[in-house]
Amino acid sequence: MEVHDAATAARAGRLHTSRGVIETPVFMPVGTQATVKCMTPAELRELGAQIILGNTYHLMLRPGLEVIRKAGGLHKFNGWDGPILTDSGGYQVFSLAKLRKISADGVEFQSHIDGATLFLGPREAMAAQATLGSDIAMAFDECPPWPCDREYACRSLELTLEWAARCREQSRPGHQLLFGIVQGSVYADLRERAARELSAMDFDGYAIGGVSVGEPRHLMSGQVEMSAPHLPVGKPRYVMGVGTPPQMLEMIARGVDMFDCVLPTRVARNGTIFTARGTYAIKNAQYREDFGPLEEGCECYACRQFTRAYVRHLLWANEILGLRLTTWHNLHMYVNLLRRARQTIVAGGFDEFRREFVAHYQERTEKNETV
Amino acid sequence: MEVHDAATAARAGRLHTSRGVIETPVFMPVGTQATVKCMTPAELRELGAQIILGNTYHLMLRPGLEVIRKAGGLHKFNGWDGPILTDSGGYQVFSLAKLRKISADGVEFQSHIDGATLFLGPREAMAAQATLGSDIAMAFDECPPWPCDREYACRSLELTLEWAARCREQSRPGHQLLFGIVQGSVYADLRERAARELSAMDFDGYAIGGVSVGEPRHLMSGQVEMSAPHLPVGKPRYVMGVGTPPQMLEMIARGVDMFDCVLPTRVARNGTIFTARGTYAIKNAQYREDFGPLEEGCECYACRQFTRAYVRHLLWANEILGLRLTTWHNLHMYVNLLRRARQTIVAGGFDEFRREFVAHYQERTEKNETV
Repeated sequence: MEVHDAATAARAGRLHTSRGVIETPVFMPVGTQATVKCMTPAELRELGAQIILGNTYHLMLRPGLEVIRKAGGLHKFNGWDGPILTDSGGYQVFSLAKLRKISADGVEFQSHIDGATLFLGPREAMAAQATLGSDIAMAFDECPPWPCDREYACRSLELTLEWAARCREQSRPGHQLLFGIVQGSVYADLRERAARELSAMDFDGYAIGGVSVGEPRHLMSGQVEMSAPHLPVGKPRYVMGVGTPPQMLEMIARGVDMFDCVLPTRVARNGTIFTARGTYAIKNAQYREDFGPLEEGCECYACRQFTRAYVRHLLWANEILGLRLTTWHNLHMYVNLLRRARQTIVAGGFDEFRREFVAHYQERTEKNETV
Repeated sequence: MEVHDAATAARAGRLHTSRGVIETPVFMPVGTQATVKCMTPAELRELGAQIILGNTYHLMLRPGLEVIRKAGGLHKFNGWDGPILTDSGGYQVFSLAKLRKISADGVEFQSHIDGATLFLGPREAMAAQATLGSDIAMAFDECPPWPCDREYACRSLELTLEWAARCREQSRPGHQLLFGIVQGSVYADLRERAARELSAMDFDGYAIGGVSVGEPRHLMSGQVEMSAPHLPVGKPRYVMGVGTPPQMLEMIARGVDMFDCVLPTRVARNGTIFTARGTYAIKNAQYREDFGPLEEGCECYACRQFTRAYVRHLLWANEILGLRLTTWHNLHMYVNLLRRARQTIVAGGFDEFRREFVAHYQERTEKNETV
């Protein structure tokens, strides 16, 4: 880690990959199906994205790993030449697919698209991520739902740790980093045990999983606080599938470096606009003749070129350009918020920045959804 | 007109507007609801678009003329600073709305969106286009359907000529050109009469309307041949809502300069790709592992950056980027086909270019639809 904040556990770091250095804290746009929805790679670069995600489960099902292998990997297939992080597919297998059988080797399941029987475990997940050629691979894990009784959390964690060890043993492309995933639900001792055991396996980074799976807000921070202190200081920490702007800042203050979330892109397509003061619904009547930008002072393409009245019109008229512009703005807001967080960690003043941001941010009721 | 082709009636010209010179023959992308579907103004520039369309009827209904007036006109509203041509709304009133009453003053109708009672005639259509601030306005006309008996065509033409004269009398913004529209269905004497009477009214250009309204293909060229020779040589001629690439080249050979059509953008969204050899369906299984561009040799953004396999995947996965890329390619193909037609008219060899293009173009069965 480059710099540690004086007042909080926040850190500014640099994560080296073969496709470039990622400056953390960082927000990673989600490219589930080999595309960040609505956006080209060039546009992602323009708004400052350093790294994007791909979802192994979705890509396995469509277009299929064989197509991506023949294309020369995911970067060649989708035209994004910066770093890519892939998940292991575990989260989607447990949340989207119809499960058949679970064993130490992995999970037999049925595709949610065509019902085909498939198998995914540590071996298959690592092979899939090798084929995708991602720069950061994730260990195969089980993400327990919330609420989750202690007995289930315990058994699930056994499996996750066993799978982590197996993933660690698989061969992978020379350039590929591998992150382990801390689970353990809301149980502090399980979280600590997971963090310690994974640390001993010496991964390149550590995710804190099972956050934002439906639990009340105060438990979210709690799960991070139970995990982060037991992870090695010199390695990046990633909270998967989170969150709102204030949630990310609070987790940065607790020592987290990396985030991904579909929230900014998903709600963009319903017309929800993220700003430093909170969100608003651009389709509301009050913006009908509002010729200001989506967010005053924002330098994204949508704000530089178009007005609220125009974007509102496009959304009501079901025009794709409307979805592009709201997506562009929201991603820009997220990516730049974390860039500013980094700047204040490096230059000093992060804690004040965080407090002021959170104080001025009007929470609304969007659901914090994950892929 | 700058250059007349030796072997055909084709011409290369330059149409001066206050927002720039349009080199003809030209294809004009259609921006029905204040956006060319999927595209930003910058992208339209990049692919070579010189002028775009706006549809008065659609814009009247949504967002409403008052919003666009307050925005400072259609250019300010949608961010396209090149020339815009607007239609009069007549075509949509007769084809989309529920008609109430027709008189010499215009048409009372009900909005197809919310059923509101509205009125559009020569006076209102010109006032609307003045508010939009388009660079080229179209006279208010009735476009008769096909088939159309002679008596109806005759009565309809009377109304269209009366309305043309009334449009000519309306005041309009100093920079705005006004085109008259030749109707007369498939009747040669009516078409000739319309062309002569409109010519006598001295418009800035002339559209040939009522083409591609469901009539057999051989009648399409016929309607152009009945009209074009009776129009002044020094003014641009515009066939509205047409057509396929071979149809445009055939009409250029008959003296037409300007075209608009939703075909390339509409079928793009179903995965139909236009090439110099005809169209194909990118969603077909044969392109699953095809890592060539959408069209070999094409220099559009989609073809430079992405493969058929990737675009096919995006469309099957219902990803918006897929619609963007197919739209981009098809518009590039249309705009550049007419640019090449112009080059061959200027340099010589248009007739050979046209014959070879048409001979190699595989017709398929897409419907040639209009807005």
